[in-house]
Amino acid sequence: MGFIEKSCVEFSDALASKAAVPGGGGASALVGALGAALGSMVCNLTIGKKAYREVEEDVKGILSKTESLRSRMLELVERDAVVFEPLSKAYGIKAETPEEKEAKDALMEQALRNASTVPVDIVRVAWDCLELLDDLAEKGSKLAISDVGVGALFCKAALLGGRFNVMINTEMMKDREYASRVDAEVDGIVQRGSALADTITRKVERRIKKS
Amino acid sequence: MGFIEKSCVEFSDALASKAAVPGGGGASALVGALGAALGSMVCNLTIGKKAYREVEEDVKGILSKTESLRSRMLELVERDAVVFEPLSKAYGIKAETPEEKEAKDALMEQALRNASTVPVDIVRVAWDCLELLDDLAEKGSKLAISDVGVGALFCKAALLGGRFNVMINTEMMKDREYASRVDAEVDGIVQRGSALADTITRKVERRIKKS
Repeated sequence: MGFIEKSCVEFSDALASKAAVPGGGGASALVGALGAALGSMVCNLTIGKKAYREVEEDVKGILSKTESLRSRMLELVERDAVVFEPLSKAYGIKAETPEEKEAKDALMEQALRNASTVPVDIVRVAWDCLELLDDLAEKGSKLAISDVGVGALFCKAALLGGRFNVMINTEMMKDREYASRVDAEVDGIVQRGSALADTITRKVERRIKKS
Repeated sequence: MGFIEKSCVEFSDALASKAAVPGGGGASALVGALGAALGSMVCNLTIGKKAYREVEEDVKGILSKTESLRSRMLELVERDAVVFEPLSKAYGIKAETPEEKEAKDALMEQALRNASTVPVDIVRVAWDCLELLDDLAEKGSKLAISDVGVGALFCKAALLGGRFNVMINTEMMKDREYASRVDAEVDGIVQRGSALADTITRKVERRIKKS
């Protein structure tokens, strides 16, 4: 059974345990999925309402995107567990002779690359969600505006949580050039995404206080 | 069946739908529970390890607290749905005569007070979690240090998400003195908690880069 099929209580039990997975990467993807879900909820509460008829087509377009990002985030919860296993195994390999050490290093390097792809994707998908939430901060129903704000908070947590999980992999890579390239891409998205999330929460706060 | 007994996929489906609950308040409590769970995980990965024998008793003490806060956060997911129902009903009451309007206002005011208690508790519990995570940023195993950072990100999201859900209730209260008192308490905790979360993530970043 996949982790996302577990109940919320069971998932939090598994997260709290010392088991290798789920960890902070998979949990970040789940929080990102909840952020995307809040975006979808706001769309669903806006579509069909007279006061928002002018933006209805836009909001329908946003909904199909938040739903697809929600699915991707849920998939990333599972994928994070899948890529962690080979890394965890490579860690455990005994290497004594120089040849064994070299073989272990090569395995580790590959496993670190694979393991980092998932949190990199979490960061990318969280950024995509934030762009949609920014649109919803203006077009979404006022009655659900706080949920746009909460969605942005979740996506920011997923974004920064993804970054931590990229970092723990890139920090250990021997190929420093490759590691720096990954870090630079992620840091760029995180900087923009973090600023956008803050812009969204400020917009939401203003709309709550005006209503 | 309670919301926390639903699978992660089902919870995110329910959140994405236009159904009144779960909403951003309950989702914030769930994210807070995941933050507390990450704290517990770090404790579980630290306890029993030779390198951390000196702090083992402290970490055991932290674990019993993170576990109790995790339970409280999970309860708040359910309670948020329970207190929202009477508010949603009060909204829907038809009131035409001055007497009916007065009765509806009184019902609304009480329902708003009740509904705000849950996000206020989410804010308080998220703060308690952050204090424990701050301790773990120094005492927790270096191998799980990124999870302390992700836990702090989640608790910050729960803290600020709780605040949005307090605001949407207090903004509508007629008793402005009561509303201001609630807002002031929450804003105080949020300011301290937000700053503490940022301190934790900076500490974690330094420990990742040093390792």
